[in-house]
Amino acid sequence: MTFPERVTLVEVGPRDGLQNEPQPVSADTRIALVDRLAAAGLPVVEAGAFVSPRWVPQMADSDAVLTGITPRPGVRYPVLVPNTKGLDKALASGAREIAVFAAASETFSKKNINASIAESLERFAPVMEQARANGVAVRGYVSCVLGCPYEGAIAPEQVAWVAERLMELGCYEVSLGDTIGVGTPLKARRLVETVGARVPVEKLAAHFHDTYGQALANLVTVLDQGIATVDTAVAGLGGCPYAPGAAGNVATEDVLYMLDGMGIATGADLHAVAAIGRWISEQLDRPIASQAGKALVARACTA
Amino acid sequence: MTFPERVTLVEVGPRDGLQNEPQPVSADTRIALVDRLAAAGLPVVEAGAFVSPRWVPQMADSDAVLTGITPRPGVRYPVLVPNTKGLDKALASGAREIAVFAAASETFSKKNINASIAESLERFAPVMEQARANGVAVRGYVSCVLGCPYEGAIAPEQVAWVAERLMELGCYEVSLGDTIGVGTPLKARRLVETVGARVPVEKLAAHFHDTYGQALANLVTVLDQGIATVDTAVAGLGGCPYAPGAAGNVATEDVLYMLDGMGIATGADLHAVAAIGRWISEQLDRPIASQAGKALVARACTA
Repeated sequence: MTFPERVTLVEVGPRDGLQNEPQPVSADTRIALVDRLAAAGLPVVEAGAFVSPRWVPQMADSDAVLTGITPRPGVRYPVLVPNTKGLDKALASGAREIAVFAAASETFSKKNINASIAESLERFAPVMEQARANGVAVRGYVSCVLGCPYEGAIAPEQVAWVAERLMELGCYEVSLGDTIGVGTPLKARRLVETVGARVPVEKLAAHFHDTYGQALANLVTVLDQGIATVDTAVAGLGGCPYAPGAAGNVATEDVLYMLDGMGIATGADLHAVAAIGRWISEQLDRPIASQAGKALVARACTA
Repeated sequence: MTFPERVTLVEVGPRDGLQNEPQPVSADTRIALVDRLAAAGLPVVEAGAFVSPRWVPQMADSDAVLTGITPRPGVRYPVLVPNTKGLDKALASGAREIAVFAAASETFSKKNINASIAESLERFAPVMEQARANGVAVRGYVSCVLGCPYEGAIAPEQVAWVAERLMELGCYEVSLGDTIGVGTPLKARRLVETVGARVPVEKLAAHFHDTYGQALANLVTVLDQGIATVDTAVAGLGGCPYAPGAAGNVATEDVLYMLDGMGIATGADLHAVAAIGRWISEQLDRPIASQAGKALVARACTA
C-alpha cells in the first residue's frame, strides 16, 4: 500500500455537522467553533450554508457567522449555496468559496430538493457563472455515493457521471459523500476506481460517515488509491437525529489520530482538536462521538 | 489489495470483554451469552478464564459457565489459563481448548503478572506439556503488540520473538493484541510483516482494540497481508473502566458489517449478533459500544 505524504482535511463540523444536530446552535457559538478549528491548524473550515432557514433552521444566521469570524491567512471558509439567491447572500457576507451539492440517487434528489439530478445540475449553471464572475471557487458535493436510503445500492458509474458533470460545470474538486455511512472498503475502492477514470483522483475528496463504524477502514483503502482530501467533523458532529448515539460524519479526531500515526502531514493539532470536540459536545449536551476524542479526554482527566 | 475469502472470528466478549467490565456478570448470564453467540454462527467463543477470582472477580465461576453451556457441534469454546492449577480446573470442567498469554512489553509483563517475559514463557512449559497429554489445543496471546501503557512504542522484533517462542512451545496460533488500541494502519502492517517473517501469517490472529477508533482501519490493512483470524467482542465489550464511554475490543458487529460488505464469509449472522449486543448491553446497563450495533438497533426500532 502507498499513501499520500500530505492530506488536506476539510472540516465540515460547523456546517454538515451542526445542520444535522436536533438543536440549532447560536451564531456566537458557531463563530467560536469556526475560529477555534482554524486556530487548531485545520486549513479548510466549512462555515455555514445560505439555505432557507425555514428548511434548515440550524443554518440560520450563516451571514452573521461569516462576518463574525476572524479569518486566518491561508485558511478557506467555504459555505454551502443551493442557488443564485443563496450565492448573492454569501457574496454579501464576504464568502470567497462556496459549495454546491447534487445526489447520485434520483429518488434522494427528488425527495431532498424536489428535482431530478439533471435538473439540479442545470440549476447550478447560473450559480457557477456568477461565482466565476466574482472569482469565487466552487466545490461540488455528491451525496449517496455508496448507498441511498431509498434505492439501496448506487452504481459507481452513476456517481462518476454526476462527478464529471460537476467538474465540467466548473467545480475545482468533487467530494464523494457516503451520506448514510453504508460503505465498506471494497465498495469504496471500486467507487474511487470508477470515478477516478473520469475525474482525476487528485480532484476527488472522500466524505465518509461513520454510521456503521466503517469510515476509517474505507478511508485507509482510498488513501491508498491517491485520495488526499478528506472531509471530517470535529467530535463526529452530525449523527442522525433519529438514531440516538449513532455516529455522523467521521470524527476529525479519529482521522487525525490515524494520519498522525501514519506519518501523514495535515498541519492540524490532534490535542487542540480533541479539546474543541469536548467543548462543542458540552455546548450541545451530547456525548463526544469520536473514539479518539473520548479516549484523549479521558486520558487528560486521569493523567 | 487482496483479501481472504473467509475469516474466522474469535468471539472474546464473554472473556476479554466481561473481564474488563466494572461489574461482574452472573454465571447464568454468561452461559446465555456464550450460547447465543454460538447460535448466531460464531465458530469460536472464548467462554471464561481459570484465574484467581481474587484478582479477576469477573471470571469467577468459569467452571459453572463451561459446564453450563450447551456445546454446539463444530464450535470451539477456549478458556484462558495462566498455569497448571488453572489448567487442572479447566480440564475438570471439560475444556477442550485453552489460551495462554504473554506480553511483548517487559514492564507490562512485570506489572501484570510479576514476571519477566522469559519467566512467563518458562511457566507455560508444564502447561503446554499437560495440555498436549490431554489432547487440548493451546492458543497464545501476545499483549501490547502496538504499544504499552508504560513503555510506549514496542519494537515489532520483540513481538516476533515472543510469538515465535509461543509457537515453539506448541501453540497452534498466536493472537496479536493491541491491548491499548494505539495502533494505526502502517504500524499494524509493519508488525504483521515482521512477525510474519518468523511465524506463518496463517497462524496469526489480529486482536485489536478500538480505543482510538482505529481497529477497523488496522484490520483492513492486515487482512490484505493474509491475516484471516480476527478476535472481536460483541457490543465492543471491554472498554477501559477508567475511561467512561471509551471503546474496548473491536465490536463483532462492526467487523461483521465490514466483512459482509466485502463479501468475506464468516458464517455469523450480523443481525443476530446485533440483537445479542443490545441484550448484553442492557444487562450491563451500558451503551452499545458498536457503531454498527447502535445503527442496526436504531433502524430496527424506527422501521
